[in-house]
Amino acid sequence: MKMVTALCLLSLVTGAALAAAAPRARDLGVPFDGTPGPLNAITDVAGVSVGHVTLLDSSDPKHQVRTGVTAVLPRGRDSGQLPVFGGWFALNGNGEMTGTAWLEESGMLEGPVLLTNTHSVGVVRDAAIAWRVKSGQADASGYWWSLPVVAETWDGYLNDINGFHVRAEHVFAALDGAHGGPVEEGNVGGGTGMICHEFKCGIGTSSRRVTVGDRSYAVGVLVQANYGRRETLRIAGVPIGEHLREHRVYTDAALAGDMGSIIIVVATDAPLLPHQLKRVAKRAALGLARNGSYAGNGSGDLFVAFSTANAEAVRDQPLNAAQFVGNDAIDPILLGAVEATEEAIINAMVAARDLSGQNGRYAIAIPHEALRALLKKYNRLVNR
Amino acid sequence: MKMVTALCLLSLVTGAALAAAAPRARDLGVPFDGTPGPLNAITDVAGVSVGHVTLLDSSDPKHQVRTGVTAVLPRGRDSGQLPVFGGWFALNGNGEMTGTAWLEESGMLEGPVLLTNTHSVGVVRDAAIAWRVKSGQADASGYWWSLPVVAETWDGYLNDINGFHVRAEHVFAALDGAHGGPVEEGNVGGGTGMICHEFKCGIGTSSRRVTVGDRSYAVGVLVQANYGRRETLRIAGVPIGEHLREHRVYTDAALAGDMGSIIIVVATDAPLLPHQLKRVAKRAALGLARNGSYAGNGSGDLFVAFSTANAEAVRDQPLNAAQFVGNDAIDPILLGAVEATEEAIINAMVAARDLSGQNGRYAIAIPHEALRALLKKYNRLVNR
Amino acid sequence: MKMVTALCLLSLVTGAALAAAAPRARDLGVPFDGTPGPLNAITDVAGVSVGHVTLLDSSDPKHQVRTGVTAVLPRGRDSGQLPVFGGWFALNGNGEMTGTAWLEESGMLEGPVLLTNTHSVGVVRDAAIAWRVKSGQADASGYWWSLPVVAETWDGYLNDINGFHVRAEHVFAALDGAHGGPVEEGNVGGGTGMICHEFKCGIGTSSRRVTVGDRSYAVGVLVQANYGRRETLRIAGVPIGEHLREHRVYTDAALAGDMGSIIIVVATDAPLLPHQLKRVAKRAALGLARNGSYAGNGSGDLFVAFSTANAEAVRDQPLNAAQFVGNDAIDPILLGAVEATEEAIINAMVAARDLSGQNGRYAIAIPHEALRALLKKYNRLVNR
Amino acid sequence: MKMVTALCLLSLVTGAALAAAAPRARDLGVPFDGTPGPLNAITDVAGVSVGHVTLLDSSDPKHQVRTGVTAVLPRGRDSGQLPVFGGWFALNGNGEMTGTAWLEESGMLEGPVLLTNTHSVGVVRDAAIAWRVKSGQADASGYWWSLPVVAETWDGYLNDINGFHVRAEHVFAALDGAHGGPVEEGNVGGGTGMICHEFKCGIGTSSRRVTVGDRSYAVGVLVQANYGRRETLRIAGVPIGEHLREHRVYTDAALAGDMGSIIIVVATDAPLLPHQLKRVAKRAALGLARNGSYAGNGSGDLFVAFSTANAEAVRDQPLNAAQFVGNDAIDPILLGAVEATEEAIINAMVAARDLSGQNGRYAIAIPHEALRALLKKYNRLVNR
Repeated sequence: MKMVTALCLLSLVTGAALAAAAPRARDLGVPFDGTPGPLNAITDVAGVSVGHVTLLDSSDPKHQVRTGVTAVLPRGRDSGQLPVFGGWFALNGNGEMTGTAWLEESGMLEGPVLLTNTHSVGVVRDAAIAWRVKSGQADASGYWWSLPVVAETWDGYLNDINGFHVRAEHVFAALDGAHGGPVEEGNVGGGTGMICHEFKCGIGTSSRRVTVGDRSYAVGVLVQANYGRRETLRIAGVPIGEHLREHRVYTDAALAGDMGSIIIVVATDAPLLPHQLKRVAKRAALGLARNGSYAGNGSGDLFVAFSTANAEAVRDQPLNAAQFVGNDAIDPILLGAVEATEEAIINAMVAARDLSGQNGRYAIAIPHEALRALLKKYNRLVNR
Repeated sequence: MKMVTALCLLSLVTGAALAAAAPRARDLGVPFDGTPGPLNAITDVAGVSVGHVTLLDSSDPKHQVRTGVTAVLPRGRDSGQLPVFGGWFALNGNGEMTGTAWLEESGMLEGPVLLTNTHSVGVVRDAAIAWRVKSGQADASGYWWSLPVVAETWDGYLNDINGFHVRAEHVFAALDGAHGGPVEEGNVGGGTGMICHEFKCGIGTSSRRVTVGDRSYAVGVLVQANYGRRETLRIAGVPIGEHLREHRVYTDAALAGDMGSIIIVVATDAPLLPHQLKRVAKRAALGLARNGSYAGNGSGDLFVAFSTANAEAVRDQPLNAAQFVGNDAIDPILLGAVEATEEAIINAMVAARDLSGQNGRYAIAIPHEALRALLKKYNRLVNR
Repeated sequence: MKMVTALCLLSLVTGAALAAAAPRARDLGVPFDGTPGPLNAITDVAGVSVGHVTLLDSSDPKHQVRTGVTAVLPRGRDSGQLPVFGGWFALNGNGEMTGTAWLEESGMLEGPVLLTNTHSVGVVRDAAIAWRVKSGQADASGYWWSLPVVAETWDGYLNDINGFHVRAEHVFAALDGAHGGPVEEGNVGGGTGMICHEFKCGIGTSSRRVTVGDRSYAVGVLVQANYGRRETLRIAGVPIGEHLREHRVYTDAALAGDMGSIIIVVATDAPLLPHQLKRVAKRAALGLARNGSYAGNGSGDLFVAFSTANAEAVRDQPLNAAQFVGNDAIDPILLGAVEATEEAIINAMVAARDLSGQNGRYAIAIPHEALRALLKKYNRLVNR
Repeated sequence: MKMVTALCLLSLVTGAALAAAAPRARDLGVPFDGTPGPLNAITDVAGVSVGHVTLLDSSDPKHQVRTGVTAVLPRGRDSGQLPVFGGWFALNGNGEMTGTAWLEESGMLEGPVLLTNTHSVGVVRDAAIAWRVKSGQADASGYWWSLPVVAETWDGYLNDINGFHVRAEHVFAALDGAHGGPVEEGNVGGGTGMICHEFKCGIGTSSRRVTVGDRSYAVGVLVQANYGRRETLRIAGVPIGEHLREHRVYTDAALAGDMGSIIIVVATDAPLLPHQLKRVAKRAALGLARNGSYAGNGSGDLFVAFSTANAEAVRDQPLNAAQFVGNDAIDPILLGAVEATEEAIINAMVAARDLSGQNGRYAIAIPHEALRALLKKYNRLVNR
């Protein structure tokens, strides 16, 4: 256990260093629609904080650890006590997102959204409850229960997923380490071992600034991206996957389908009601589609959206008051969710680094120069 | 046409007369839980108005007309201009309720809820649009469309349903004639030809007065009831259907299943958000179940709920404000919806009168004295 | 009435003539993924037939008629007697598709799918029942009802939609005139007055040939396309809407959102169960997204999918047998639905012709040469 | 750990002993509709096996353990390798049932259904994966993941739920100990600490024998019942809760709502397709309603249904064949699910025994003689 903790700390430091230096998709000249916020990250939505714990251990070649936990706290430190309005959508349900029955029923997301690997959802889920108990968030009346939201993608290509390496303390560390500001992307947290369109992938984020009536709002997206076949990859409409055909992951002809999954978290400070947040969550599918996903059978494409507005409304008194954007005015938010999702996924691919894993497996990151060359070939490269 | 119009007027008069004299389920000593409003009707929710047009024509023995239209206007005369928050639920979707895609998406019910027979949903739906156009409710910008909510049950046992006897003017009359106050029950409006647990049935209504925090709200229900097998009928928990085995409708052994359908409309003045109104709509299923329904394959059991609160919020501005009852405080409303549904159905059965129909068919109403005798036998008769 | 009928016939003839001569998107050099069937139309799915009735009447300048009805019969002449397994999905429910409660509940699509304008859904729906009664499809037992599937998009920009010009005889003509073989596209049938990304649009179709295990199946799509803002239009990934900024429809700044809607019908001869057809219907959203839709609030984006296989299974006996493609093998069908949807929409745009309408309004079709020039600029033009 | 294991064994023995002697609801003279199978248990569906592990530990008065795990294996030992068609329904989603996204998407239930307390869902879920890995059920290709179905109700009134006392070995024991034949009811397994209508409750089961066409099928139900207010309790239609007003659990006026939850598992050997099993799952709500539930806000009422037929169909080949009951013939199965649910809940109440718990709390079981007396008073006692 000591070793893993050490690796976590190491990764956190490395992550911070990377954040300063690493180019993002825009830096490479990929064109995107719309106007991002200052961080171009989910944390452009005030109060949202993100924490990663990255687990890397290569000591046993047959059981290499490449996994982790990512925590998104809608209201930062207040997330345990103060829910947010939320909604969710399953584009293709070959995945797990716990807590959705209550999210759907109540219209509220209580506590953080946690992301990890497929076979560690359980430990993360119970640890999220334990963390709330530890933090004194349990109701003193004794009539208290918690139904955490934990989602996953499958990192079993590189990671020893059946070794169950995620433990409660990792969850606590991700939650306690969550912060605003720039968000680490690529091989970090729950995204550590993830692969996307057969390129190394992981966590990505983006945001849009939108205007509704006379007000300005942020729409932020964070993805744990692990989906897709190489051949259908499009970036900014350019058929990248038709050209970059080398170093594929799914070389076995029997594995003909779309493996992997993507979890998309959409946050906004626009005041939206629960049924409207379900609408927003659905738009993540449209951003995903722009990059070439067809949501294959093997892909668990589950999306959750929440609004940090209405902090008073969610206290669940007999009578509450909430503000909300009218349906007729909601288009900029819907479009912003599409655009930020499209970019967050490409950010995850661009930020990722080559990674080796169990059984001698290896996943390369998308080569930046080849990507730029293709954008140029199709007259889509933005010169910066 | 003249004749039918005449019959309509006649029926309206008759209806008013009946309302004064006819006993309701409580008057017969059937026990129910909870506290009804002053009218024990959906119109206990302030502003809700109800109109019926009843079409009865026996001039052609083979094509007898026993059908009609019932209109529920959530905000009375303002219903066209001012939507209500709403939600819906399909317990068993062997039926039609138009307009639900938009109701689900927007969380708003725009305009009236109209009830008719299965094969007249279309004419009623387009007429509802025409009525809004006629009333000047169409948006002057020219970018205006309407997606009315029209639901149905099947009266083809007594009624010449394939004769398509409902016409636009009947819809206008039901809408224009809608009023608050006592609601006619039984063989009226859309309920004219309906049959329930193989007894003549039709329209029924009931309400509950509930307290949430320091406020009091009304929960009202109106049903167009046309479902059920005789043998499963329970009233106030008493197995009535096991005893009253005579005069069944479905005597053909091949017709083994639950025929017919039930549409349930739940109204409240409690401020509820759309996702909460879906919760309320679901509770109609529980009230229905108390009377013995198992929601057979042939039954279209579709429920809609709306709240008349938040008249300002639904104007769909860029920024709106709404009040709502917290989830933790919502139980009295949920229970009220169950209780009022249970009673509204029995009210429909008790108010209905024997009716003959096409091809010599005949449906008897539940015999009041036999019902009282059975309640007494099971120690459930309330003496009044 | 006579005149309108004459116009219908004229349009059918004209349609046939157009079909021979008019270029489709591929003919212009637009690149698409996958392999189309021989007709590149929904009618590549054996048995599917399509009928259009086009209503054009310019005699009253203030009330010009530009509308119609399109019928898709899953099993041609047998569609009334023999259902198909089906499923549906609402990407954005600002629209109407009747019959979905029963489609969802039963897993079966009974009868045709009919497409028309928003305010004529009712007349088309009841006429679909009358057509089945006329055709002797009503059950002799007398216990028969029908819950037709009728969907719409809004043509009120060009068409006098509040004039309610569609009548039952037009529905009968569309149904009776349905045929296999090439499908007319553009300004025909329900698509007559439709507009897409602010270009004249209407009906479009496409298909894909896919292999599952050792079998080959067809996936066909037909769209009635009426959605979208100009600026988000992408064709084959090329940002067409950023360049073709002239001749917009929504010039009023107040009309900031996505107006209009799209109905997408997906057919396949692959044996799929109802829950799998819902999966297929969802993929239409991903094909739509490739062309730049963000499913704005004003857009009714409703999709239905059906399978013509299992003609014996759907007879609803106490015990039935069905074949179905395993979930693990379903990816080619999902991808085919995405690809055929993407192409069907562009086919609708390419086939449409400029059209004037009420109040002096005018919608131009996408200029073919300008489209080709832009594809070339972005190195995406296929030379043929 | 030794102690807990010892308690488990003890409880299994005790359970077996109880099964022989304890009266069930029918034995007390409670009338129910329909015809049960020979065991009147979910295990009347051939192949279904059930295992319980009961955790009882009173050594620390402030942290008393009253919880456990119940496993339902649809195909007994083959459940890991061979899925079943399945469907689910949330009547009120204040609860957790993991695995439902994939169940909904795929139409298949893979592996067992596990029931436990709210705060132990995670450990049980990951342990279910570990058990499959241990059992050699992981796919040798390495492309294997598992999304187990684990549901819960809240036993925190009696049980030290925040002590997280359930561990992986308890899950293995419940799975490995599963068996056909009589099923232990009451204070066992996941039901150990559960409370229902403020009487001690827990696990209950029942079944119905139904005829469809010329075939006979079993419909079995198992519940983990923990829902309900005392005052709404009805048994066989008799208002028991109005009379038995003593020894309530929720004495605090602030706790005005329906606390707790109910998980209902419906099994059948009738061949049903996934969308039909969702229909069956919905009927559990109607059986529940007969006993007085109104599905209060605090209640997590989640239901899952599966069919053990079609063992070949679920192997997920490119082409598969399945049998299924036609919708028109499905009513006996729907009714059977309602009836068996109604009885299974009462069986859980009748089988439960008084239990003390943490902080000096105590829950009494429903007094059998008082129940009989009330049934007699209302002329509903069946003399046996």
